[in-house]
Amino acid sequence: MNKNAFRQLSYGVYVVSTWDKGRATGCTANSAMQITSDPATVAVSINHDNYTNQCIQATGKFAISILGEHSDPGIIGTFGFQSGKDVDKFEQVEQAVKGCLPVVADACAYIVCDVIDKMETSTHTVFLGKVTDADILKKDDPMTYAYYHNVVKGKSPKNAPTYLPEENGDASGDGRKYVCSICGYEYEGDTPFAELPEDYRCPVCKQPKSAFVEK
Amino acid sequence: MNKNAFRQLSYGVYVVSTWDKGRATGCTANSAMQITSDPATVAVSINHDNYTNQCIQATGKFAISILGEHSDPGIIGTFGFQSGKDVDKFEQVEQAVKGCLPVVADACAYIVCDVIDKMETSTHTVFLGKVTDADILKKDDPMTYAYYHNVVKGKSPKNAPTYLPEENGDASGDGRKYVCSICGYEYEGDTPFAELPEDYRCPVCKQPKSAFVEK
Repeated sequence: MNKNAFRQLSYGVYVVSTWDKGRATGCTANSAMQITSDPATVAVSINHDNYTNQCIQATGKFAISILGEHSDPGIIGTFGFQSGKDVDKFEQVEQAVKGCLPVVADACAYIVCDVIDKMETSTHTVFLGKVTDADILKKDDPMTYAYYHNVVKGKSPKNAPTYLPEENGDASGDGRKYVCSICGYEYEGDTPFAELPEDYRCPVCKQPKSAFVEK
Repeated sequence: MNKNAFRQLSYGVYVVSTWDKGRATGCTANSAMQITSDPATVAVSINHDNYTNQCIQATGKFAISILGEHSDPGIIGTFGFQSGKDVDKFEQVEQAVKGCLPVVADACAYIVCDVIDKMETSTHTVFLGKVTDADILKKDDPMTYAYYHNVVKGKSPKNAPTYLPEENGDASGDGRKYVCSICGYEYEGDTPFAELPEDYRCPVCKQPKSAFVEK
């Protein structure tokens, strides 16, 4: 079996969010798809280890914020590489409340759902949601997973369905490789990493230069 | 609710196939996503009205052929706008047998699955499949649904989750609008439709010029 074939499936880049006892929380996701058109239903797949999973189980509701190519890529790191149990992710990212649920204000569109069914797998829950509200937030091309990998040069966290352990980038300008210890982003610029300004931040998860380690 | 928000979800273009009593059959699908990475599982959503649905229920197996940007767009029409009950679709499209299942030879990759769970909705079945075989068939960029709509100018059949009734194209060169009665493709070329050669065929479903009707 050649697992690279899985990478040929096309995805978008989303934040799936809900309430955690009145506080907004969520996580980055790629696996979302419309299932029926009338009534409109959408399925999302969320890892059991994601705190968002248990919050969706508790509220019975989730929202999908669809990120655009012009959405701040830092949103992906904020929602993808840390737990909502430990961090108030929406403190770092502007939220809007739509259809009674928190969504990412910088997304290009949102879909709000009531959970009407679910399917459990060994590691993920597939939630089926009946759409209760949806709208376009701004004109933008939706960010695809391919765009995130090829243009933003982003990586996948270990609990993503699409994670491949052999994900590697290229060397930085001085022949040494530096990776962000938070999100796995590998620096690929022409300027040697050591010569980058001290206020350099990871373009994916916005962590400071000090979060980078030599590979 | 603004249903245009659903169009911001990103999809690929796939043929989901299986055996129908020893004969290969399948249908075009957009809704496929990886659910878990180890063991690898993939979910697909197939309308109850698609003959492929009952064939998957009977065999307990399905294959996903991932179409590339250079795959023949006629494959989408062959598998998307006619029923495998009436037509031997693989008579018109070259097949390869991979992991005991028929796949589209002109795809860029394939994934073969055993059904391990399913979730029923009002109109679609979401099949969860454990991957038993997968490989790349040729180097190509996977075709996205956006590419299919924007570059191939393709439409969606009425039983697709992503179908929107207001899908319309532009006028043809003589100010009249001609649409393919089989797949709904709207002719948009500069040459007036009447002046097209008699061997003109619908670029999406390969039907002859006579299948077009004035709108």
